[in-house]
Amino acid sequence: MRKYLVINGPNLNLLGTREPEIYGTVTLDEIENRLKKLAKDLGISIEFFQSNHEGSLIDCIHEAKDVIDGIIINPGAFTHYSYAIRDALSSINIPFIEVHLSNLHARESFRISVMADIAIGQITGFGAFGYEMALQAIALPHSSGGE
Amino acid sequence: MRKYLVINGPNLNLLGTREPEIYGTVTLDEIENRLKKLAKDLGISIEFFQSNHEGSLIDCIHEAKDVIDGIIINPGAFTHYSYAIRDALSSINIPFIEVHLSNLHARESFRISVMADIAIGQITGFGAFGYEMALQAIALPHSSGGE
Amino acid sequence: MRKYLVINGPNLNLLGTREPEIYGTVTLDEIENRLKKLAKDLGISIEFFQSNHEGSLIDCIHEAKDVIDGIIINPGAFTHYSYAIRDALSSINIPFIEVHLSNLHARESFRISVMADIAIGQITGFGAFGYEMALQAIALPHSSGGE
Amino acid sequence: MRKYLVINGPNLNLLGTREPEIYGTVTLDEIENRLKKLAKDLGISIEFFQSNHEGSLIDCIHEAKDVIDGIIINPGAFTHYSYAIRDALSSINIPFIEVHLSNLHARESFRISVMADIAIGQITGFGAFGYEMALQAIALPHSSGGE
Amino acid sequence: MRKYLVINGPNLNLLGTREPEIYGTVTLDEIENRLKKLAKDLGISIEFFQSNHEGSLIDCIHEAKDVIDGIIINPGAFTHYSYAIRDALSSINIPFIEVHLSNLHARESFRISVMADIAIGQITGFGAFGYEMALQAIALPHSSGGE
Amino acid sequence: MRKYLVINGPNLNLLGTREPEIYGTVTLDEIENRLKKLAKDLGISIEFFQSNHEGSLIDCIHEAKDVIDGIIINPGAFTHYSYAIRDALSSINIPFIEVHLSNLHARESFRISVMADIAIGQITGFGAFGYEMALQAIALPHSSGGE
Amino acid sequence: MRKYLVINGPNLNLLGTREPEIYGTVTLDEIENRLKKLAKDLGISIEFFQSNHEGSLIDCIHEAKDVIDGIIINPGAFTHYSYAIRDALSSINIPFIEVHLSNLHARESFRISVMADIAIGQITGFGAFGYEMALQAIALPHSSGGE
Amino acid sequence: MRKYLVINGPNLNLLGTREPEIYGTVTLDEIENRLKKLAKDLGISIEFFQSNHEGSLIDCIHEAKDVIDGIIINPGAFTHYSYAIRDALSSINIPFIEVHLSNLHARESFRISVMADIAIGQITGFGAFGYEMALQAIALPHSSGGE
Amino acid sequence: MRKYLVINGPNLNLLGTREPEIYGTVTLDEIENRLKKLAKDLGISIEFFQSNHEGSLIDCIHEAKDVIDGIIINPGAFTHYSYAIRDALSSINIPFIEVHLSNLHARESFRISVMADIAIGQITGFGAFGYEMALQAIALPHSSGGE
Amino acid sequence: MRKYLVINGPNLNLLGTREPEIYGTVTLDEIENRLKKLAKDLGISIEFFQSNHEGSLIDCIHEAKDVIDGIIINPGAFTHYSYAIRDALSSINIPFIEVHLSNLHARESFRISVMADIAIGQITGFGAFGYEMALQAIALPHSSGGE
Amino acid sequence: MRKYLVINGPNLNLLGTREPEIYGTVTLDEIENRLKKLAKDLGISIEFFQSNHEGSLIDCIHEAKDVIDGIIINPGAFTHYSYAIRDALSSINIPFIEVHLSNLHARESFRISVMADIAIGQITGFGAFGYEMALQAIALPHSSGGE
Amino acid sequence: MRKYLVINGPNLNLLGTREPEIYGTVTLDEIENRLKKLAKDLGISIEFFQSNHEGSLIDCIHEAKDVIDGIIINPGAFTHYSYAIRDALSSINIPFIEVHLSNLHARESFRISVMADIAIGQITGFGAFGYEMALQAIALPHSSGGE
Repeated sequence: MRKYLVINGPNLNLLGTREPEIYGTVTLDEIENRLKKLAKDLGISIEFFQSNHEGSLIDCIHEAKDVIDGIIINPGAFTHYSYAIRDALSSINIPFIEVHLSNLHARESFRISVMADIAIGQITGFGAFGYEMALQAIALPHSSGGE
Repeated sequence: MRKYLVINGPNLNLLGTREPEIYGTVTLDEIENRLKKLAKDLGISIEFFQSNHEGSLIDCIHEAKDVIDGIIINPGAFTHYSYAIRDALSSINIPFIEVHLSNLHARESFRISVMADIAIGQITGFGAFGYEMALQAIALPHSSGGE
Repeated sequence: MRKYLVINGPNLNLLGTREPEIYGTVTLDEIENRLKKLAKDLGISIEFFQSNHEGSLIDCIHEAKDVIDGIIINPGAFTHYSYAIRDALSSINIPFIEVHLSNLHARESFRISVMADIAIGQITGFGAFGYEMALQAIALPHSSGGE
Repeated sequence: MRKYLVINGPNLNLLGTREPEIYGTVTLDEIENRLKKLAKDLGISIEFFQSNHEGSLIDCIHEAKDVIDGIIINPGAFTHYSYAIRDALSSINIPFIEVHLSNLHARESFRISVMADIAIGQITGFGAFGYEMALQAIALPHSSGGE
Repeated sequence: MRKYLVINGPNLNLLGTREPEIYGTVTLDEIENRLKKLAKDLGISIEFFQSNHEGSLIDCIHEAKDVIDGIIINPGAFTHYSYAIRDALSSINIPFIEVHLSNLHARESFRISVMADIAIGQITGFGAFGYEMALQAIALPHSSGGE
Repeated sequence: MRKYLVINGPNLNLLGTREPEIYGTVTLDEIENRLKKLAKDLGISIEFFQSNHEGSLIDCIHEAKDVIDGIIINPGAFTHYSYAIRDALSSINIPFIEVHLSNLHARESFRISVMADIAIGQITGFGAFGYEMALQAIALPHSSGGE
Repeated sequence: MRKYLVINGPNLNLLGTREPEIYGTVTLDEIENRLKKLAKDLGISIEFFQSNHEGSLIDCIHEAKDVIDGIIINPGAFTHYSYAIRDALSSINIPFIEVHLSNLHARESFRISVMADIAIGQITGFGAFGYEMALQAIALPHSSGGE
Repeated sequence: MRKYLVINGPNLNLLGTREPEIYGTVTLDEIENRLKKLAKDLGISIEFFQSNHEGSLIDCIHEAKDVIDGIIINPGAFTHYSYAIRDALSSINIPFIEVHLSNLHARESFRISVMADIAIGQITGFGAFGYEMALQAIALPHSSGGE
Repeated sequence: MRKYLVINGPNLNLLGTREPEIYGTVTLDEIENRLKKLAKDLGISIEFFQSNHEGSLIDCIHEAKDVIDGIIINPGAFTHYSYAIRDALSSINIPFIEVHLSNLHARESFRISVMADIAIGQITGFGAFGYEMALQAIALPHSSGGE
Repeated sequence: MRKYLVINGPNLNLLGTREPEIYGTVTLDEIENRLKKLAKDLGISIEFFQSNHEGSLIDCIHEAKDVIDGIIINPGAFTHYSYAIRDALSSINIPFIEVHLSNLHARESFRISVMADIAIGQITGFGAFGYEMALQAIALPHSSGGE
Repeated sequence: MRKYLVINGPNLNLLGTREPEIYGTVTLDEIENRLKKLAKDLGISIEFFQSNHEGSLIDCIHEAKDVIDGIIINPGAFTHYSYAIRDALSSINIPFIEVHLSNLHARESFRISVMADIAIGQITGFGAFGYEMALQAIALPHSSGGE
Repeated sequence: MRKYLVINGPNLNLLGTREPEIYGTVTLDEIENRLKKLAKDLGISIEFFQSNHEGSLIDCIHEAKDVIDGIIINPGAFTHYSYAIRDALSSINIPFIEVHLSNLHARESFRISVMADIAIGQITGFGAFGYEMALQAIALPHSSGGE
């Protein structure tokens, strides 16, 4: 059974309470539950990790090496400057998708990504549903058929 | 029945033949067929338009006014400079999603979008499957529940 | 009798319906009617052209050559990138005035003009009345007395 | 009776003698006389102020508070750097129009405006006639009807 | 009793020993003691936290949610790049003041703040006394009367 | 008795009436009265100067030479471009503190300071209370003890 | 017999009348006649297309696919911003040469090319003769021998 | 007898006392005395003006019109931003030389000149002697013979 | 006996497995063993630390204070943005050398160093051998003789 | 008989051996032989110069004054920074054409020309054949007829 | 007897013939003769060097070490990029003045100096007379008295 | 026996006398003697070249072709702009190391390298010892084993 990892970066533990006009009212727990259900439907295994610590996120990515088939990551604010997470992702040689709840392009100018260029792709602006889109994209065979 | 419009910009008529290492081997016809099938599953109506003419794309967007419930657009190279298409999209007050086959972030530096900031969101890098992701995102009720 | 041409670029056909908080509620028809009345008062002839197609605008400018005494142009979003329209205007050697309904300086940073430097002048922020100001400026003798 | 103020900044006292190929041969006196005549026609009251001193221009703007219905200002070279005049204009809450005799867009690159974004609009390139255009725009009821 | 939190970022544990010509000779302990005394005088409760770990600072900020009335933060070098701390501060909806011991404006060009724009205000250059200024500003009623 | 000078630049005479959502409702008179009271408490002498004229501010700074022990200055919009005031301040060799009512970092991008690097420090965002903070910082012995 | 296509973009239909001090007095007809004669000498077939419509130029480039052996293109002002034409040229996999009548390097700073990097080469500044140079370069065997 | 004007801008009244390590110990009086002596030797008439007020400097420049044969100006800090003084100098059509006591190129990066391009030339770094160099350069016949 | 510390930042624990075409096939263990041997030869003591956590690296640097004679650091991706590590290194007043396995100058443009300017020097491009070069440079007397 | 000079800058003596995938396999000798043959056909005289020394290239350009009718120059890497060669070329008042073997636009971003704006034109990307194109363009009468 | 060296860089050997509208009609010989005469008057010794070779200029500067009391240099186009000449000048520890015939500030934007910041000062725009000004400035005692 | 070449660029002949606080007091002769001794120890042959002439350095690099096994180069100030030396080094296909005596990162902002990206690596800041480090790195087998 293929195994996927969903990683959430800093402040995403506050989802549902933090600036709901930007990030929505769904909590991280609810998102993870939806993804578990979807994973079951897709016949795949899924794991979750969230941390506000850059180093812990890097450790987690390292541990995915040779164990995980694909990563869905919302690096939170680390998206904008963590070259260390970028290097971690490129070190382990596992395909990953970058997800953002809000539409980065509609926000502050510093909201660029320093790692999207080494991702399969980026999904931005679809709230909690973006994770489900990503999981389908990375897990379904017709996705790879599309590119 | 809700009605959606899928717009493809310049050079996308060549899909499947044009630089397949970047854009994949699926033709535009095949993409449209897949989307028709998905639309049927979702119980929605779907229409298609492709043109290499910026003016025709603008005319088409204008005609969507008060008729269409949502737009999925891959503006092709117009993504990078057509403020006229941007203005057309903001004029008609219909939600839209921007889709790109390849991962813009991994390509030339001019591959930025001048309209993504007024979209619901952007999907980039998932080949033909990106359109299906967009259709689900714009048509399904749980999408709006997610944000 | 001197003959003037009023050209409107992309999306201006939607005037009165499009983002009225920015562009006002007057339609293009109403503007043209006001200008016809003013032209009659000034004893001049006036013609109108609107298109969402950059190429059609260029063709129209070419046809003005040796026939038209002055052009009033609101290039819409082409203001910001159409070097082809700029070249067309500089090719035919007819004085022109650039008009914008809203105050470009108060909007997005991309709202600069790539052709204002070869115009007689620019009028921005006065809504539909801006066209009437332009027509007086280009047609009345005391205008040339002023500069 | 509504009351308007026309403010001219540094070096505009030399009008008619200063670089006539750029600024024309009309003197400031002649411009003010024309505007007085036009004001009479429009049934409004008009006042004038010119100074080469930034501080005096600011003092004058302050005094307009609660007394003047609208301001027409040609800030001369202060256009390009006087954030103090900008702040004065935004402090008193009176609509104003920015006028320039020459076409700023056709001149040196430093000829940008640091206050046009808080004006109603900007008129540039029409010589002395530009002031008359501005007076009509700010004083006539159909102007507000146009926007 | 109102409760305030004073957060110090990386390297501030070395205060008094680290480059005293820039940061002064007062230790963090001494600063905290002064602040405790001042808090007592002001009739408020005060807490302290220092860490060299960005993630721990974020965790600490999260825990302040619904418990703390105001934060005084010297983010140390994280001032210049930690969008994650910025997001944490904007997530919890508690007013905060940014304090720096040295005058950032007189130092290296990278010494800008990526979070000052969402603070109440910034105090920079007053050494250890800057924290006392901040505590008064955030805790005293006449402060809010001043703005 | 030590003697301090409080200088306010252009438009600050309008305080309390000018854009109160940005600058608060306290008038300059009220601020000066508060500072007089605080000065009395601190056992120091205090003087005030306000002008909309850059030259008058420079003259005033020159006259402080050898007479005044410290300056608190809110240069208003001159903060952003008056290198002449900067040079005046550096010429007379008296310590000074820069104060701003609103949080400059949260406003337009041109709101940078061209003189903060030669100040003791900068206080920004605390409204009228900021002046009192500055007076304490420059006049009290424990301030110099803090750095 | 090898077949070549010569494409001219916007405003080049006015050649000979448009700003002759920049573009010379030769008309497009004359250029095409010279090229026909040269093509005959070289034993190759030649076709021509000119349009002011970006979309028509793209359509024309698409039709060249699998039919034409090489393209000589003067994209006119589209040179400076038409990423859509760039993408069209890279889609069809036919070698092309970019020609400009005037020396782009001696003109306005916006006169850069967004497609020259995917051309065989660029010829600029030789007037009508530049097309003949290009035809020889693309059609003659010693050209390929040279590189 | 030819007549020359020497203008000094803000803070130059403090010469000899202000930052002597940058500006030297000679006072403005001493400089003017030296220049008077040199003027006598050269058989020319000389006048002096100093002000900290930009507007007064502009007024003074205006009064030089048709009266003065050449201007030597040290605009002090106005060098770096006073487009109003630049415009004044270009309005009166009198040749002028820009002088700076210290070597601008060796100082802060903002120490550029916004008016040197319309001067005859610039002399920078020679202290008080620079004025004498300028007077010779503008007054002596072999100077004009040199260029 | 002099004591040296070798610090390795994020992802360097993966050495030998991570992108070997960039970073080589030697593991961190092997590098440390080589350095131990070299240290023995040089008659010095050596210690090692590696972490993916910025805060732990800062803590480690703090602990070196007054204990360690010199540091060799490869900050990994923190090289490019960790002003906190930079401040830690400048706080403890111990000479350090920055080492990189690959040639930073030949890689992505973001691969600049924010701390090299406060190092003794930088060694980049020599793989694992770079650490040995650094150890000799910092530990041998002829190194200091060379500068 | 008209006389032309072909100048080649640094490293072009290595042609045929140096990076053949960029510069081709033809040697400089072979290029010069081809050009001699073409010159004979055109009935003109031709001379050659190559040097790796900027000063020698300048000397050579000076000697062409009043002797040579036109110059073809491939300045090699001096293209990108030798303002001295640029000044030499503009000093002698002889028309010149800039030639590059490879397509500069497809190479590193530093590959711009600091002298192309004062050339007749530039030919880039056609290998050794580019010199023959240039010789025809500068020597044939129909070239001047074309512009 | 004090000894001075006048160095002229590339293309200055052409003085009097090269673009006389920019550089004047005086030859280098005439300038040197004037300077010899002035040197005699000043009771100093003077030497001259001109070369189009950067390396020869550097060699010449090296030879001045311990022999020459001051250098007047017009580095020609090397002014704009020769960091090697800059380093040579800073290596030998002799005061130097930079002279330019034309007013650099009125010319192309690349006409900046990479060495003026380490000169005593710069004289620009006074043609051949500029060298005489420089010689007086560097040789006369009242020059040093002025700063 | 393997053969190495050590090239030193402009002003390095002055080593030991030139700004010793930056470059140390060791002369070039002493550096070369140390390297000869080290070469002997390593069983390799070594040669030296120094010139202030860019062209001579290029000639020397060309002559190394097929003769030399590796180059150590300190290009002096040519580091910062000599694309010609860069091209020479890339033309001959010999590995090279770039050495700088001082730490470039701690000096003026123009001290970047235009050739380090095509070197094996760069060593900067270790004075004369840097050359010895480079020689070991390029000549020893374990160096190539390290990367």
